[in-house]
Amino acid sequence: MSLLVVGSMAFDAIETPFGKTDKIIGGAATFISLAAANFVNDIRLVAVVGGDFPKPFVRNLETKGVQTEGLQIKEDEKSFFWSGRYHMDMNTRDTLVTELNVLGDFDPIIPDSYQGVEFVMLGNLSPQVQQQVIERLDERPRLIVMDTMNFWMDVAREELDKTIAMVDVLTINDEEARQLSGEYSLVKAAKKIFTMGPKYLIIKKGEHGALLFHGDQVFFAPALPLEVVFDPTGAGDTFAGGFIGYLAQTRDISFDNMKRAIIFGSAMASFCVEKFGTERLVELTKAEIEERVQQFIDLVQFDISLVEG
Amino acid sequence: MSLLVVGSMAFDAIETPFGKTDKIIGGAATFISLAAANFVNDIRLVAVVGGDFPKPFVRNLETKGVQTEGLQIKEDEKSFFWSGRYHMDMNTRDTLVTELNVLGDFDPIIPDSYQGVEFVMLGNLSPQVQQQVIERLDERPRLIVMDTMNFWMDVAREELDKTIAMVDVLTINDEEARQLSGEYSLVKAAKKIFTMGPKYLIIKKGEHGALLFHGDQVFFAPALPLEVVFDPTGAGDTFAGGFIGYLAQTRDISFDNMKRAIIFGSAMASFCVEKFGTERLVELTKAEIEERVQQFIDLVQFDISLVEG
Repeated sequence: MSLLVVGSMAFDAIETPFGKTDKIIGGAATFISLAAANFVNDIRLVAVVGGDFPKPFVRNLETKGVQTEGLQIKEDEKSFFWSGRYHMDMNTRDTLVTELNVLGDFDPIIPDSYQGVEFVMLGNLSPQVQQQVIERLDERPRLIVMDTMNFWMDVAREELDKTIAMVDVLTINDEEARQLSGEYSLVKAAKKIFTMGPKYLIIKKGEHGALLFHGDQVFFAPALPLEVVFDPTGAGDTFAGGFIGYLAQTRDISFDNMKRAIIFGSAMASFCVEKFGTERLVELTKAEIEERVQQFIDLVQFDISLVEG
Repeated sequence: MSLLVVGSMAFDAIETPFGKTDKIIGGAATFISLAAANFVNDIRLVAVVGGDFPKPFVRNLETKGVQTEGLQIKEDEKSFFWSGRYHMDMNTRDTLVTELNVLGDFDPIIPDSYQGVEFVMLGNLSPQVQQQVIERLDERPRLIVMDTMNFWMDVAREELDKTIAMVDVLTINDEEARQLSGEYSLVKAAKKIFTMGPKYLIIKKGEHGALLFHGDQVFFAPALPLEVVFDPTGAGDTFAGGFIGYLAQTRDISFDNMKRAIIFGSAMASFCVEKFGTERLVELTKAEIEERVQQFIDLVQFDISLVEG
């Protein structure tokens, strides 16, 4: 039950209709690791931060079972910084500031102790870096999941396509699925993306839930209707972390188990949005997760017998 | 298992990215009746059409168990006409033409033979007309479901509120729920709308599915991911017709049975969008409906045991 997590660790400054933050801890690898740590205690982290990144937060990750030998700390440089403002619908946002800093020339070093890992989660990063990680693994892992975004489709399509061809599961949002495939229908988009390499496609639709496609099979998980969506930052990464964490814990990559993993991922994401940044995730208990999963069961379960009584 | 259906019967001219139609048969009561007729054979129709409305279509409805004593035919006038153009996302549209014609002074007459009806579906119409229908029923039906739209919130809010206070179930889309309640969160919107009268709220989200709220309970049904959404016109009415038709057939208004009714409604709506207008609905078989409901079961069912093994 080993999991390699690669991605950004960063500072975010967030504005929502409900408030704004100073620089708080964010980044794809941060959210993925925090979510996955609820399921698996052998997480191997590959990331880069500057000297400004809080050491106590790294120690805290270590107590949760996250190995940090692959975390590069560049003491004289600054961590990646992103600032954004969410619109009222909380599904769209404007980027205000992006400072790559240490991420600009990130060379993802894989420590020897990380080799032989079973599951890999490639958080959103440049496709070149994601590709390097795969190439630097001595053995092919059981499952490689890759997240990406429209930005790379715009500026690095060729490299992106090469990387996508190397992974098992691709996670993108609905607009990105349309952009990547050139198909408006998500069913058609999935078929097209399967010809590019991945055998599984997860389409994240934010407050409208998530779809899992595999061959001709499709599974849908809703997002939990919440009274307050406080801050969506990191929800997609948290979803991915719950998904891959559950798979790594159960070591079962059947379609039926992926359905369960999608539900656990959705449950984790529903916590993420309740507070700013990682605030809600760091305080989470197993009992809360089970209670939340039960809410998902209640939300979608129905009992129809199609045999006439 | 009697059902009163009130609503428009009309001509539509539709443009979508996939094609356009001349005047074809549409209208809320048309779609509702066609969908409900798959479940219940005592449908009592109240509507008004002009002399231009095709008599064979009315005869066809009658063969499906729709009583038309309450259908007023104004031979010298014209039927309601709506024309619209859908955007690429198929969730938004522009109205090109609205000609009220016979609907302008519609006085919904309830024949004596219609009295004592158990279930009522008020399709989208002016709230005054919907209210008149309720007032003209000698006995309170078991369940009154009301559909409405943003237009009435803009131009007749006071009358609308009065009518909403008289019904059991309100069906609106997500934007309308936000407009009606002044709340952005759909969970908060539902709570607010419950203080206005209805005990159940169905929020239709088009391709993103539907939510059923009742007290603190919530149920979610997805829309079926389709390769082609050809024409969404009437999908909401078809959903409502399947919903109320299933309830009228089973005569069970428990929350658990409403969940099933939502799934059957969603299945009916998924057929509606496959062709222009009523084309797909008039040719539908029971076997096709059961097969489609099975697809919904496959789409959302998962098996999680929360007791640690």
